[in-house]
Formats: sequence, structure tokens, C-alpha cells
Amino acid sequence: MPTSSSPVPRLLTAQTGPLLQLEASLLGKAAEIEAWFRTQWQKNAPPFYSSVDLRNAGFKLAPVDTNLFPGGFNNLNPAFEPLCVQALQMAMQRVCPSACDVLLVPENHTRNKFYLENVATLAALIQKAGYRLRIGSLIPDLHEPLELTLEISGRKLLLEPLRRTADRVHVGDFYPCTVLLNNDLSAGVPEILKNIRQDVVPPPDLGWHLRQKSNHFGFYREVAREFGAVAGLDPWLVDPLFRNCGQINFLKREGQECLEANVELLLADIGAKYAEYGIQQEPFVIIKSEAGTYGMGVMTAKSVEDVRNMNRKSRTHMASAKEGREVTGAIIQEGVYTFEKMGEDGATAEPVVYMIDRNVVGGFYRLNSQRGNQENLNAPGMRFEPLAFEEACSSPDHSCGPDERPNRFYAYGVVARLAALAAAREIAAVSEIRAQTAAA
Amino acid sequence: MPTSSSPVPRLLTAQTGPLLQLEASLLGKAAEIEAWFRTQWQKNAPPFYSSVDLRNAGFKLAPVDTNLFPGGFNNLNPAFEPLCVQALQMAMQRVCPSACDVLLVPENHTRNKFYLENVATLAALIQKAGYRLRIGSLIPDLHEPLELTLEISGRKLLLEPLRRTADRVHVGDFYPCTVLLNNDLSAGVPEILKNIRQDVVPPPDLGWHLRQKSNHFGFYREVAREFGAVAGLDPWLVDPLFRNCGQINFLKREGQECLEANVELLLADIGAKYAEYGIQQEPFVIIKSEAGTYGMGVMTAKSVEDVRNMNRKSRTHMASAKEGREVTGAIIQEGVYTFEKMGEDGATAEPVVYMIDRNVVGGFYRLNSQRGNQENLNAPGMRFEPLAFEEACSSPDHSCGPDERPNRFYAYGVVARLAALAAAREIAAVSEIRAQTAAA
Repeated sequence: MPTSSSPVPRLLTAQTGPLLQLEASLLGKAAEIEAWFRTQWQKNAPPFYSSVDLRNAGFKLAPVDTNLFPGGFNNLNPAFEPLCVQALQMAMQRVCPSACDVLLVPENHTRNKFYLENVATLAALIQKAGYRLRIGSLIPDLHEPLELTLEISGRKLLLEPLRRTADRVHVGDFYPCTVLLNNDLSAGVPEILKNIRQDVVPPPDLGWHLRQKSNHFGFYREVAREFGAVAGLDPWLVDPLFRNCGQINFLKREGQECLEANVELLLADIGAKYAEYGIQQEPFVIIKSEAGTYGMGVMTAKSVEDVRNMNRKSRTHMASAKEGREVTGAIIQEGVYTFEKMGEDGATAEPVVYMIDRNVVGGFYRLNSQRGNQENLNAPGMRFEPLAFEEACSSPDHSCGPDERPNRFYAYGVVARLAALAAAREIAAVSEIRAQTAAA
Repeated sequence: MPTSSSPVPRLLTAQTGPLLQLEASLLGKAAEIEAWFRTQWQKNAPPFYSSVDLRNAGFKLAPVDTNLFPGGFNNLNPAFEPLCVQALQMAMQRVCPSACDVLLVPENHTRNKFYLENVATLAALIQKAGYRLRIGSLIPDLHEPLELTLEISGRKLLLEPLRRTADRVHVGDFYPCTVLLNNDLSAGVPEILKNIRQDVVPPPDLGWHLRQKSNHFGFYREVAREFGAVAGLDPWLVDPLFRNCGQINFLKREGQECLEANVELLLADIGAKYAEYGIQQEPFVIIKSEAGTYGMGVMTAKSVEDVRNMNRKSRTHMASAKEGREVTGAIIQEGVYTFEKMGEDGATAEPVVYMIDRNVVGGFYRLNSQRGNQENLNAPGMRFEPLAFEEACSSPDHSCGPDERPNRFYAYGVVARLAALAAAREIAAVSEIRAQTAAA
């Protein structure tokens, strides 16, 4: 009888070697892990959708970023479409069971041809899930519907100016019951979306104007601790250590002491863990803006000196963030080596896992041949490689039974879902704060 | 902006011609149809799993059989696996949110090599959904675990004798919280499964010992009527007319008058509909045993004479059913021509659609080159052709936009789900009767 378990799609990974111990031990505990996830999702509803950047160091597999407004649906392999559609139906059902009409509110950057492909793909998926969909744009100077022909796919995309009448938003005479944000609200919640009667998912309070990476990873730490008990492993194996500084202004060198002290402490903590596991590599940390997205404001440091000696250019880079917001807080996160390489140029690779509701629906590799295994790959030179389904054993072949090819992607799906679970708790906490504020 | 909608997987069909009017009109109303399905599933939970045999006459697309214990998961394309796994998680969540362990109770026929492949595939899917699974067999003379090596795939299957201790069933020390039936209980609910504390899905009352085709198609008639109002079409276009006879004994020629009268009335009703739509083909009916499965006890008739002149051999065939049960009731169903042909031999083809919970998860064609387009294909000469995903447009290609290839399989997914919805109402009605009986 087959004994392999893989509650996530069987996907190809860049690695082809034997299963690493961590991956094997997660596979071995799959039934317990899945049962635990189920009880967790009953306590906290999963995010509508999410994407998680992972780093696989072999000895350690950890999320380094959790995005609640995923912008790369176009990078998923089209073979995943039915899976996405089914999961979207599940997610929509949770939000508004009677919903028929959905308004998608994307980012404003109409010059990013990749992002526009994402919007078109997401829109098509929601339509295929059986919903009427139109796109309501927040572009300030958009006064008429704008039809774009996408440069890459040639698809057409109709952006309509988002309007508000009383306490409902709409485009033209299309008044949806659900507003789906694919805009991370870095600049804050726009007035037009405040206190509207319609359901807005994800909750606007989860935008990067309020969200903080250290808050997320604080929840993640708890999730990892509980998960460690279920899976019988040291939570550190799936959890990047971190510290944070509340007030940093890189340009003005404000908060420098906090930063240096925390980098030193964190490097020591990582060093202790490396010693415990006999890991020979050099510890490093990643410093990121608390609210940064799109890979902006990220640096690697192996010592306090690296931080002390930051030059003007690096400081400017760290101070910049999406829509020019000044960086006011920083998270110092344990750096996780990635030992995955892919392509003819042996580009450094990190998996990005996509989830809709509780389901892993696909993923891709972020590759960067100009970056090393300790660096942020979300940088110039970045490219994407869709993950394909692992070739299934469709023909009767004794050497290819379902139990003989453990799916190494399973572990990625588990860790990605841990991050989604942390986000679920983050969402619940934010909603509670919001409710208390409203009641006060 | 893409406008096509396909809440079911994009699948290849045997047809390649232009979309027929019915298919096109269902695609055009997809958002309304999907919203309606969602409200329906809130009223009645979908069956755990189901398979529906469809016939596509071009002018008409209708279910002819709805199976609540599907036995062909092995015939699904392995590419559907992730879809099945995700849907199984949804289905299991509904049955027993905290479930970890599942006991699968299959049919007893260990000499049917195809059915054994189905059991192995279903077992693997449930394991991949994150559940521990063992197989509890009802085979009377099985006293020890029996490991079978499957002839076709070479997979191993461990059948363990189903045991009962107090009010719980188990195999060995494996006490599951959920018992999943893949046994249609033609011979009645076995004592060992009566009044057990564990959840049993589908409900044993839905076994063919109690279930009647005419009861199902009575519910289907209601569903089709409501659906017709939503989709703006004559319900007959998706609904096979039927009549039924309560007491028939083909061998003893008992109930012959009822049968002849109903065949005559039904042929006249079909003829009237054909005239209304200007259909030139000759009406025919299918006579089936109320509880028959596996294609046994099925005959085609184009006139009362066909029934009157049944020879001894045909009568014996009609009187036989699975496990030799005497046929006591018959449904006389409008015959639906199938105009689908497939393969080099131009075999007559009918699609079989598989569903788990509310989701269409795949399908296959039942082919029979020895049978005509008015005949039951579930007969000697039958073979299966897995449906593949329609080739997705993965590359930027203007001639291949997502809105330009309407998926003709969508209509099949709609009609199959109508049948699943009828089964959902059937299940709810049976549960209510059971509850009233228990209270009395």
C-alpha cells in the first residue's frame, strides 16, 4: 500500500540529491502535521492569498518574507490553473458565500509589464472561479476606463477608475460585494476605501503602511515553536532568528547603536546554533526595512563592521523604500544560506510558494545569477522559473510506484503554510485591535 | 480583459467542432450559474464524492447515471492528482474536521484488477491529502491481513479484515474517526457497520440496497427545473424524461403491462419534445433496474414491441444484477443519443465526470466500439480514455489568449454538478427519514 503523503502538489525542485534530513522528517510526520494544520485553520482563517519566499540551507529551511498581496500569479505554471481556481472558490466562499461580483484593486504601476501580467492572470483566475470581475484602479489621474494591451502576453486589461457612492465603491454601475486588494497599501489606506460597507480582503490594516516584518516573525516564532513540538524538531530548523530596532534613519545615522548592538547579539546567537549543529559556514544577518517590499532596503552583514562601515550609497539604498517612504524601523534577520542552484548559469535560487486560502497552489524559483547564496535575490538580475508538476507515474511501472518518489517539495509547502499561519494570527490580532478601537 | 469563465478544469473533449448552442449558452451564463451553485451547496452539502455518466446529443446534454461510490479513480489522468487531493481535504474537513485516520471499505471483488487499481489510487489520494489510511475489507472469509500485488500497476494493497469492538470498527489497533465507503452496499448494510459511533461517508442509506434511480432522477428533475430558470433554458435540455414501474420481474413477466404502458407514454413524450425542437432522430428509451450497477440490467427500446418481444436471454440479463439480486423495480429513461466518437475505431464515447465535494476533479471517456450511439456502453468491449487537461497557453501568443478558447468541458461540469446536487438532496432526504425513524 502506498505510504507516501503529499498534501501539496508534487512539484519539481532544483535539487535532485537525496532527501535532506529535515525534509525526510517532515514527510515522515505528514499525517500529524496535516492534522495540526487543520486544527489551526479552524482557530484562525487563512489569509485569502499569500506568497512566501523560502531559503533552503539544507540543514535549515525557513521563510524570509511573507507577502499578503502576491504579485506574481503570472509566474505560476499554467498547469496550476485548475488548482488555483478550486482554491479561489474555497477562499471566496469564506469571504462572501453569496458573492457574485468582485472588484480587484491592483497596484498603480502601469509601467511594470510583469505586474500587469499578474493582474491579468489573477483576474482570469477569479473569473474562471465563477465570479464576475472588474478592475478598479486607484490611479489618481485616471478618469476614464483605460484599456491596456499587455506587452508580454498581448492580453487586454481594462482598468476603470474606482468610484465611491455613499458607503460603497464601484466602477461604473458595477457594485461588487467583495473588494479584493492586490495593492499592498504602502502609502496607507486611501480615503475611498475607508469604512466602506463591502467586504475588503485582505483587510486593509494588513497593508505595509501598518504591517511590520518583526510583528509577523514574532507570530511566526510562536507558530514554529508549536510546530516543533508536533513535528518533533528544533523550531530553529524552520525559524530564522531575528531582532528589531524601532527607530532607524540610515541617512541620518540615527539608531546606529541599536542596529550595531542587535547585529552583534544576533550573530552570536546564530553562531551558537551553528556550533550546536556543527555547521561550518559563517553566520550572517539580513537587515531589512520593517515595511519594505520589492526587495528594497535590504542588506547583508557578516559583522558589526559591515554595518558600521556602510557607505553613503548603501545608506541611501537602505533608506529608500517603495513609494519613497522613509524607513523608520528595521528587522535584523538571521541570514539563511540557499544551496539551491538552477539553470545553465548555476544561478542562486530560492523557492517562492503561492497559497490561496489554506492550499499550496504552485510556486516558482526566483533566480539571480549575479547574487551569491547569502544575498537578497530580489535585485537587478532577478528572473523567474515556474515550478512544474513532478512527472507523475502514469504508466504501470514497478520501479515508479507512488511510494518510491518522496516529494521534496512537501517540506516547502509545510514551511510556507507555517508562514501563512503566522499571517493568519497576525490578521486575527489586527482585526481584534481594530474591533477594540471601534468599540472604545 | 479575459471574459471566459471555466470553474471546472479545462479539459479536452472528443469533440472539436464549434461550440454547440447549449454549451455556449451555459458558458455565457457562467457567473449566474456558479453563484446559484454556491447558494445550493449552502443548503445541502455535496456528496463526499460522485461520478456522473453523461450523454451529449448535441441538442441535449444529460446525466444518465449518478454513482455515489465511484470506482474509477484509476482512470483519471494522473495530472488531476493535485486537484483531487485539494478537493479531498475540503471534503474531509466537512465530515470530520479533526480527523486524522480514515478507514476505506472497498467492494469485495478482489479478482477485478481494474477495481483494485481504483482502490489503490483512492487510498493514495487520501494519504496525500494528509490522512492516515488503512483498508478494512468486508470479505467474509478474510481472517488475516492480505497483501495483494496489483496486476496492472504492480502496486501493493493491504486488505485487512474489518473488525468491530463495541460500537467502533477498526483494523488491528487502528480505530479511525471516519469510515469511507467505496462499496455500494448492493447486498444491504452489513451488520458490522450498523449503528457504529464513527462517521460513515457516504451514508450507508445511500447504498443500492435502498437507493432507487427513479428517486434520484425525481430530485434531478426538480434541480433541472430550478436550474432552467437560472440559466434561461428549457430544463428538458439537461434532463432525461423518465417513468418508473414499482414491481417488475422480467423472468416471470410480472409487471409487463406497467412496463409496456410506460414505454409507450415515454416514447410519446420524447417524440413531442423532438417535434418541438425539430429533431429528426428516432426517440428511444433505456430500461434499467432501479438499483442496478455495473451496467447490468440495461436495455434499449424504440417501441413497445421491443419490450413485448424480449427473448429469454434478454429477460435473464434484465433480471440479473450485481450480487444476483432479483430486480424488483425498473426505471424507463429517455434515451439520449451520444454524438461523441473517439479513437481510430470511432468508438462511441460518453464522458464520465468525477467530483469530490463540490469540485469537478477530472473525468474520462467510456468508449465502446461494439456499441452504437443509442446503447449502454457499460458492456463488454468497454474501455476508458482519461481526459487530459486542455493544453494551456503557456507562452506569450496573441492567437492563444485565455478568452479565445472557450472550454467545452464547462457544460459537462455544470450538468454533472446538477446531478451531484440532486444526489445532495437525495442524501438530505434520506438522512431526514432516518432521523424521523430513530425518533419514532
